[in-house]
Amino acid sequence: MVKFKNTGIVGLGIIGGSLAVEIKKRKISERVTGFSRRTETLARAMKDGIIDEYFPDFEEGLRNLDFLILATPIDVIKEYFVKISRQKSSVLVTDVASVKEKIVKESEEILGKNSNFVPSHPMAGSEKSGIESIKENLFEGRNVIITPGDNTKEKNILKVKNFWEALGAKTLFLSPCEHDRLIGLTSHLPHVAVYCLISLLRKAESRDILFKCMGTGFLDTTRIGKSNPELWASIFAANRINICCLIDDFEKALREMKNILENDSCEKLIMELKNLKTLREKADEKN
Amino acid sequence: MVKFKNTGIVGLGIIGGSLAVEIKKRKISERVTGFSRRTETLARAMKDGIIDEYFPDFEEGLRNLDFLILATPIDVIKEYFVKISRQKSSVLVTDVASVKEKIVKESEEILGKNSNFVPSHPMAGSEKSGIESIKENLFEGRNVIITPGDNTKEKNILKVKNFWEALGAKTLFLSPCEHDRLIGLTSHLPHVAVYCLISLLRKAESRDILFKCMGTGFLDTTRIGKSNPELWASIFAANRINICCLIDDFEKALREMKNILENDSCEKLIMELKNLKTLREKADEKN
Repeated sequence: MVKFKNTGIVGLGIIGGSLAVEIKKRKISERVTGFSRRTETLARAMKDGIIDEYFPDFEEGLRNLDFLILATPIDVIKEYFVKISRQKSSVLVTDVASVKEKIVKESEEILGKNSNFVPSHPMAGSEKSGIESIKENLFEGRNVIITPGDNTKEKNILKVKNFWEALGAKTLFLSPCEHDRLIGLTSHLPHVAVYCLISLLRKAESRDILFKCMGTGFLDTTRIGKSNPELWASIFAANRINICCLIDDFEKALREMKNILENDSCEKLIMELKNLKTLREKADEKN
Repeated sequence: MVKFKNTGIVGLGIIGGSLAVEIKKRKISERVTGFSRRTETLARAMKDGIIDEYFPDFEEGLRNLDFLILATPIDVIKEYFVKISRQKSSVLVTDVASVKEKIVKESEEILGKNSNFVPSHPMAGSEKSGIESIKENLFEGRNVIITPGDNTKEKNILKVKNFWEALGAKTLFLSPCEHDRLIGLTSHLPHVAVYCLISLLRKAESRDILFKCMGTGFLDTTRIGKSNPELWASIFAANRINICCLIDDFEKALREMKNILENDSCEKLIMELKNLKTLREKADEKN
């Protein structure tokens, strides 16, 4: 079993905060040190007992860590790589970001070939954000994708793999590029689609009537549209090229569906919807 | 309060079955008579005590009814109009179908100007179907849209309005055409979008890996893709013209989003996502 002396977590939102809770509960680290831009978040985390100490100054706290989890938005991770390279590049580091190629490239540029960074991405979260949305057992049974770069050290990969498994998660390995293509499809494109569905509500003459015409279908389907806008803007920007290709594929699929609606028999449509239902149900079986 | 002597329900799936449960629980009708194509469904409904009797032959059972709810797929409703016009056109009839212009037109053609049909559409349901998915209080607090045609009688509208309100629902009135445009946007287009998102999974080289790359976001967003394919094919066919226009609008929205991603600053993207989040949150407040 993995065991750390002092685990630092930067960002105590739904992922970072839930990680702190699990690490303490499962005794994976003797101490948990919190970092956050917001002093209230740190005070609340101390009060709730999910961290043992915190440092307003990252580099000061970094000195005593043997494991560091960057649970911050993608565009901030780079700054932490710079601080780590300056202060203590021996510390084992992982992250939880939803886009991996950019992060791996940045880690190679800043931390060099001898880096102790292992990129990972847990398939867990929610449209909610902030320390209020912390959830127990958030990682239990969830998949965590680890995306080593060419220079990622085997012994570090193993430690990070063991860490996630100690939280009840299952791990799998993908290249950073493969990760970004697949997650683009299963997560980023659905967010784009949902934002675009919501954007069409703007055109309605009476929004109040429109809201009354909503069933749980619309509300559930577009729930992810309530996610943190800054976070998602940074994800979209970081995986822009894959997402733009996927938007093209999606438009093609829409045109094909329109074509079936306009030109084909109802039997053909039923067959198509049946096949898609079966495919969707397989996703449930595997999750 | 409305009070019927004998209410017939055709179709004992999630909507028809849940209606039977509520009508009995709230004592809205002295008797509830069930109709279904499937004998097992009728036997199960009798055993569970959600209906008082059933007739394999619709026209035989129809004789004793003073209220009839057609909770069948859209494309079957017409057949019942024919049977009602032959047998007992004095009975008050409503339906629960998701497309209204077609139904109103059919009712006028078959039942004539003196018809006792009042079209309605409850904003309640689920991707689940069949008698197993019956849910208590399914209509409590939900909106029900009533879409009278030019000849719908005022006293019948009032009875049907009171009926839904006795189930705890809120009622509103729209023209059949307005209903189909708005529901096209809030329900039918999201189904199209979700089916198209699911269809892209087909392209993945390894579906097993793809399934592991799914978070709750994908699963929740595409939950409605597990709906009954026959039902949804008939809805798509019945509201084809509106849906095809909406697909065009949706493609336009996707292209605009792609344009922001490719050409605009991250600030502009954040602003757009913030606005969409706010709009989506308003839908929660109103539901």
